[in-house]
Amino acid sequence: MIQATPVRLRTDSASFAADFAARLHWSADTDAAIEQRVADILADVRQGGDAAVLEYTQRFDGVSATRMAELELCQEELKAAFDALPEAQRTALQQAAARVRRYHEAQKKASGESWSYRDEDGTLLGQKVTPLDRVGIYVPGGKASYPSSVLMNAIPAHVAGVAEIIMVVPTPRGEKNPLVLAAAYVAGVTRAFTIGGAQAVAALAYGTETVPKVDKITGPGNAYVASAKKHVFGTVGIDMIAGPSEILVLADGTTPPDWVAMDLFSQAEHDELAQSILLSPDAAYLDAVQEAIDRLLPTMPRAEIIAKSLNGRGALIHTRSMEEACAISNQIAPEHLEVSSHEPHRWEPLLKHAGAIFLGAYTSESLGDYCAGPNHVLPTSGTARFSSPLGVYDFQKRSSLIEVSEQGAQTLGQIASVIAHGEGLQAHARAAEMRLK
Amino acid sequence: MIQATPVRLRTDSASFAADFAARLHWSADTDAAIEQRVADILADVRQGGDAAVLEYTQRFDGVSATRMAELELCQEELKAAFDALPEAQRTALQQAAARVRRYHEAQKKASGESWSYRDEDGTLLGQKVTPLDRVGIYVPGGKASYPSSVLMNAIPAHVAGVAEIIMVVPTPRGEKNPLVLAAAYVAGVTRAFTIGGAQAVAALAYGTETVPKVDKITGPGNAYVASAKKHVFGTVGIDMIAGPSEILVLADGTTPPDWVAMDLFSQAEHDELAQSILLSPDAAYLDAVQEAIDRLLPTMPRAEIIAKSLNGRGALIHTRSMEEACAISNQIAPEHLEVSSHEPHRWEPLLKHAGAIFLGAYTSESLGDYCAGPNHVLPTSGTARFSSPLGVYDFQKRSSLIEVSEQGAQTLGQIASVIAHGEGLQAHARAAEMRLK
Repeated sequence: MIQATPVRLRTDSASFAADFAARLHWSADTDAAIEQRVADILADVRQGGDAAVLEYTQRFDGVSATRMAELELCQEELKAAFDALPEAQRTALQQAAARVRRYHEAQKKASGESWSYRDEDGTLLGQKVTPLDRVGIYVPGGKASYPSSVLMNAIPAHVAGVAEIIMVVPTPRGEKNPLVLAAAYVAGVTRAFTIGGAQAVAALAYGTETVPKVDKITGPGNAYVASAKKHVFGTVGIDMIAGPSEILVLADGTTPPDWVAMDLFSQAEHDELAQSILLSPDAAYLDAVQEAIDRLLPTMPRAEIIAKSLNGRGALIHTRSMEEACAISNQIAPEHLEVSSHEPHRWEPLLKHAGAIFLGAYTSESLGDYCAGPNHVLPTSGTARFSSPLGVYDFQKRSSLIEVSEQGAQTLGQIASVIAHGEGLQAHARAAEMRLK
Repeated sequence: MIQATPVRLRTDSASFAADFAARLHWSADTDAAIEQRVADILADVRQGGDAAVLEYTQRFDGVSATRMAELELCQEELKAAFDALPEAQRTALQQAAARVRRYHEAQKKASGESWSYRDEDGTLLGQKVTPLDRVGIYVPGGKASYPSSVLMNAIPAHVAGVAEIIMVVPTPRGEKNPLVLAAAYVAGVTRAFTIGGAQAVAALAYGTETVPKVDKITGPGNAYVASAKKHVFGTVGIDMIAGPSEILVLADGTTPPDWVAMDLFSQAEHDELAQSILLSPDAAYLDAVQEAIDRLLPTMPRAEIIAKSLNGRGALIHTRSMEEACAISNQIAPEHLEVSSHEPHRWEPLLKHAGAIFLGAYTSESLGDYCAGPNHVLPTSGTARFSSPLGVYDFQKRSSLIEVSEQGAQTLGQIASVIAHGEGLQAHARAAEMRLK
């Protein structure tokens, strides 16, 4: 019988630190063979354009085309995919899109507008915020092809004001995912191509005869895509390099154990490297969640992946207190952090690093994944220590604005002259001095 | 006699596009030998810690030490360097720091505060903004060791609320730059080490027995440093990878030609790869600037570097109009953009992509470099199309906040369930459904 038994740890055990570190370990080191293969593909596409993309698409996806135009999905095809969906799916996609749009509009208003101020002497200082001109969105094909990812990447770009959103999605053996096409329609993707892998990243980064060169590439992908994105970083902007997905649940024992068990499953069902960790000061509650896992697992269609993930990477951890659980969470900097407590606002101020914080028993991660509004593209593998959810700010850039008044040039010129001479940059100094009366 | 003759181009010439592209061309491709060397150094430091850093520091910088502690600059040493400066330099550093601090405080207020809103059903959505815990600042040694860079990297980190700022600066043959040490004192650097190169980047990224592991590394450096930063990206955050510095001046002919010539010099004096370009619809004005270049160049201590840069990469371009000059500027997305016009606010709205925009004749780039307030770490080589000046936002990260109310879970659960089933993620669906009444 299929079983999932996440390792059981106690923070008051002498070996806890070592045991937990072993459980968390995941190597982000990339395979040198993949790196070389990707470098070759990038060089080929940069050189060969459409012809190289067509050749790789045939080789890797089994899709034959003689011209890139055959691999473009026209707006009519996207709309037709949407129109052909059952009404419940059409409505759900539209409702999710509306909520995601509203959240990102609030985000733009809170942190994405231009600003300026003037000194007493009339000098103006500020920052002008403008959208990127054109972005590329990578959508994985095959079993991890998710319409929700289309919404989460394209809508913030739209809200930012990006004029052209180019989507690429591989269609192995020609199989198109109608929900992905429909989501592209709902999210307002400008153009879409059925290409994928490193060759699609190269096409977006360098441009080909048919695929326009973009300014930034976002979206998840396999090891080839991740390596390709890292390679082209600098030529174009990229979002983060995603690792396996993770959830960490802090539980005070007041949420029904079945709910928490299912939240752990929802992370584990992504793939066997996904990580689900539960921390609670209540040992009996951990037992109850394990019991729920045992009872619910056999009812899950993806039980096998869930079991592999929980057995290989899951953990139920008995902490001394909720405070200690919060401190451990800060060390991990999890992608998804559920505060499954009847007093979530007591703990939230203690939490420093996380991609998204889900407060209270009703806030299952899955609601956030699809439709609460915030982005589901989040920093993984501890990178929440220094990076942020995908957002409107990823599709904007800032330009400093400086207008020094004649009077301001007198004060600033003196300061600049002294420092510039100190640095041995005399032209800098004289440019400032020339503006002195 | 030393001469600087930037190439003269006209936009109405048939060969303009090709001629200009040739002038702009700069290869960002990294040297495979450097890449391999850097990979080895990173692996050595990751493995060997302090001992490896000490060995490389002896080998590359000619600085012998038996323990890392000998390479740490204590606060007293930084303060002593400041106290020993001439009063004019002390005052200039403090005034510059105060202005940079004020600007970045305004930036934090405008775009770096937490926010949230509630739906009608009580569901809370928002984003919490928090500082990074610990950052590393790379300051180049030798001839490009600039105290202003210390201020421009450390102050935004400070304003963001970063608790620990670790500076590294190589001291080839043991030579310390007193202005750099003094700037570290003024900017409030927490700890400082006299190490550099890829070995310093590795020490910051992985941590050693003595050098603490940081969350993000910012600051410019040579090809080894740039390659090392790109390598460790993902383990830690990094700022941008900087290319050669550039200035583009749009001139309507109303600024004294000497001022503009000196502004072109101030870019060119950085190094021979630096690029200075002037665009004007007034051919006589271009002649006047060339005349000023000829007259002023022999008076410049760094005339040789200036001449190499202007001869190799400079350009004076006669445009059909100021509108056309603005359009060309948008194609280039320059790091520094001077709008040297008596009506700069007429042209500013036309300018989409630039690191910093300097408006009006009194706003020389050098005032912005040192003390106007905005950051002088700016996106180079066209990356202003997708990236921004270094800022408070680089030292903060965001966490989404979601608290779904019981009522909210009823609406959201239905949407999530439909999409999750569509994606074949049944645990996601059931986690949402369990919260339905």
